[in-house]
Amino acid sequence: MKILVINAGSSSLKYQLLDMKDEKVIAKGNCERIGIDGHFTYKANGKVFETDIPFPTHDEALRTVLKYLADKEMGVISSVDEIDAVGHRVLHGGEVFTESVKVDDKVLEELDKLVPLGPLHMPANIGGIRTCMKIMPNVTHVAIFDTEFHATMPAYSYRYAIPKNAYTDWKIRKYGFHGTSHKYITSVLTKLVGKNKKFIICHIGNGASVSAVKDGKCINTSMGLTPLEGLVMGTRSGDIDPSALQVIMKNTGKNIDQAINYLNKESGLLGVSGISADIRDVQKAVAEGNEDAKLAVDMFCHRVKMYIGEYVADLNGVDAIAFSAGTGENRPEIREQILENLDWLGIELDKKKNNNFVRGEIFDITGKKSRCKVYIIPTDEELMMARDTKAIVERNKK
Amino acid sequence: MKILVINAGSSSLKYQLLDMKDEKVIAKGNCERIGIDGHFTYKANGKVFETDIPFPTHDEALRTVLKYLADKEMGVISSVDEIDAVGHRVLHGGEVFTESVKVDDKVLEELDKLVPLGPLHMPANIGGIRTCMKIMPNVTHVAIFDTEFHATMPAYSYRYAIPKNAYTDWKIRKYGFHGTSHKYITSVLTKLVGKNKKFIICHIGNGASVSAVKDGKCINTSMGLTPLEGLVMGTRSGDIDPSALQVIMKNTGKNIDQAINYLNKESGLLGVSGISADIRDVQKAVAEGNEDAKLAVDMFCHRVKMYIGEYVADLNGVDAIAFSAGTGENRPEIREQILENLDWLGIELDKKKNNNFVRGEIFDITGKKSRCKVYIIPTDEELMMARDTKAIVERNKK
Repeated sequence: MKILVINAGSSSLKYQLLDMKDEKVIAKGNCERIGIDGHFTYKANGKVFETDIPFPTHDEALRTVLKYLADKEMGVISSVDEIDAVGHRVLHGGEVFTESVKVDDKVLEELDKLVPLGPLHMPANIGGIRTCMKIMPNVTHVAIFDTEFHATMPAYSYRYAIPKNAYTDWKIRKYGFHGTSHKYITSVLTKLVGKNKKFIICHIGNGASVSAVKDGKCINTSMGLTPLEGLVMGTRSGDIDPSALQVIMKNTGKNIDQAINYLNKESGLLGVSGISADIRDVQKAVAEGNEDAKLAVDMFCHRVKMYIGEYVADLNGVDAIAFSAGTGENRPEIREQILENLDWLGIELDKKKNNNFVRGEIFDITGKKSRCKVYIIPTDEELMMARDTKAIVERNKK
Repeated sequence: MKILVINAGSSSLKYQLLDMKDEKVIAKGNCERIGIDGHFTYKANGKVFETDIPFPTHDEALRTVLKYLADKEMGVISSVDEIDAVGHRVLHGGEVFTESVKVDDKVLEELDKLVPLGPLHMPANIGGIRTCMKIMPNVTHVAIFDTEFHATMPAYSYRYAIPKNAYTDWKIRKYGFHGTSHKYITSVLTKLVGKNKKFIICHIGNGASVSAVKDGKCINTSMGLTPLEGLVMGTRSGDIDPSALQVIMKNTGKNIDQAINYLNKESGLLGVSGISADIRDVQKAVAEGNEDAKLAVDMFCHRVKMYIGEYVADLNGVDAIAFSAGTGENRPEIREQILENLDWLGIELDKKKNNNFVRGEIFDITGKKSRCKVYIIPTDEELMMARDTKAIVERNKK
């Protein structure tokens, strides 16, 4: 079975083709600047091909992807018919979709209703699905939701302490995101540590979230109604007194949409350091003695540590902690700063192992006295999406 | 030394007169409905006196207090001149006042500048001081700040991850409140447990906050720029994704001030339960099988538990946990629910002791296997204010 995985943004379309026989990626790439001009990247057979191609819409982008996949010279399949199913990344499942779903007209209708919960991402996600279904009408299309894995949270975790009708009428609650990553890491940890265990998963990239997992199910996560809540991120503030918006709006004249945009796009590491949203740049500035950069990194690490504390309390223990995504996988100094002085919680890092990790590999960095395991686990959202897509295809065959 | 302690709100003036010889309250009461009509309460010599008196402004209210204190029949002092100093509660010290201060014209000027940080409380607090200084020009007036105790927090705890100028220009940061209470509880815990220890203090009343204290100094607290952040409270939401404001405003047509008011006044226990801001009423409804009430209590307790987890991580341990204020002191079921399943953190409650506590007394409710002490400690903000006032008077004598 060959599965195409698609992540459609407003001006981009990322893709991977996986052969599920051995779960290997056989081609992948990105269509960028859709609607602007168009840039195409294609990686297959150990080669990278890059070129400018006009992409007026997602339609031309996807047709280009399919053309290259089945190209006589550069392709990896002999015909587009070899693709058995397409898995589509969708930001928000709301409370309607608590697991991946085969897309049909009724599902598309429901998806349209969820646009208000993700006004920036959902139109592109749904548009991408519609385009693909038009071009590939004979294969199964599956929607995979970033919120799905968190659907198991108890109400006392996902509800906010606001009037009930804000939840029932306007759907304001904690949803959580990065679900596909947290789900994938959970599957890896379950193999490593066992079932019926307690995990804390730190997905720390440009966007970042922590989740608490018990018996394979998410019981709490740091992102909320939107990806704004929780950790300090590249450009997102994470947790903040909502009253701050009042002061920001009064001082800048911004309206609420602009003020929320300010918290999403101008804050986080970028805002505090004044240097960059990329933690590597900020760390470089720390090494050069920049005080704002140091504060940004300290806040970044401290916030993750606070969430680990929360979730150890929520789980009443922890069997394994995993670091994943760009920063989590590749920045040993950040992992060390997050986990320092947590021995009361039974968490200890092996500093030497932490520094001698191998990029892209699962790595055990547990300290000798640690009461829980500590791992680096490279995430693989596309593989998780492909597995979910395969499962839906097989379920539908029965 | 006799010290008058004043807490002036927009339509009220609470007072206590303490004799610092033995730190006993010799008279106390409240002037209510100032500017509306006027209601006076006076407790002294074991008697309570209550009557309607016209209070057009705080001036008439304070004059009434002084008249009763020195009254031949009902009074407790022979003349107002016996009052050595007045301690005034002030909500916000900003970054200017990190400890209590003797009020003079320059201090009043600085206080006026802090009004934007507490637009609802500061004008009343400052107005109360001005009135008292006019009526009692010959005694020392001391301002005691709700934010003071939290001034020792490190920057990585008090800064938000927003652009630096939001802090430098608009003073947006975490300040913390209930400081006088947290300071008082810290003084009691220090006597009970010792210096150089780690405390977590849960001040849980209608307003509620948790603080982490190390070596007598606050290193973190749950309230933020305003008292809105942190725990679920009587009518306050506490922590919430700031994006929720966007959805609330879109759906209700409220402006930002109204939306923040909604989070402050219509949310919390009241909003979720739909019944009451008073946890006793909500608990009663739980007993009658009300599901919304049960969720409200569960959220309330869960949030406190999450902050305890955070602060155990922040302190890397805990020597003592204290419960204080209305709910913290008097609701054993709430204490039990907060502390259940925290043995991994070394926290265990003695359920029997917890139920057999004596109202108004310091009570040890530590479980046998607990690695930290657990106490009920009745708070006494007025005594703390009187002590601070006395210290300032004595410092100024030198």
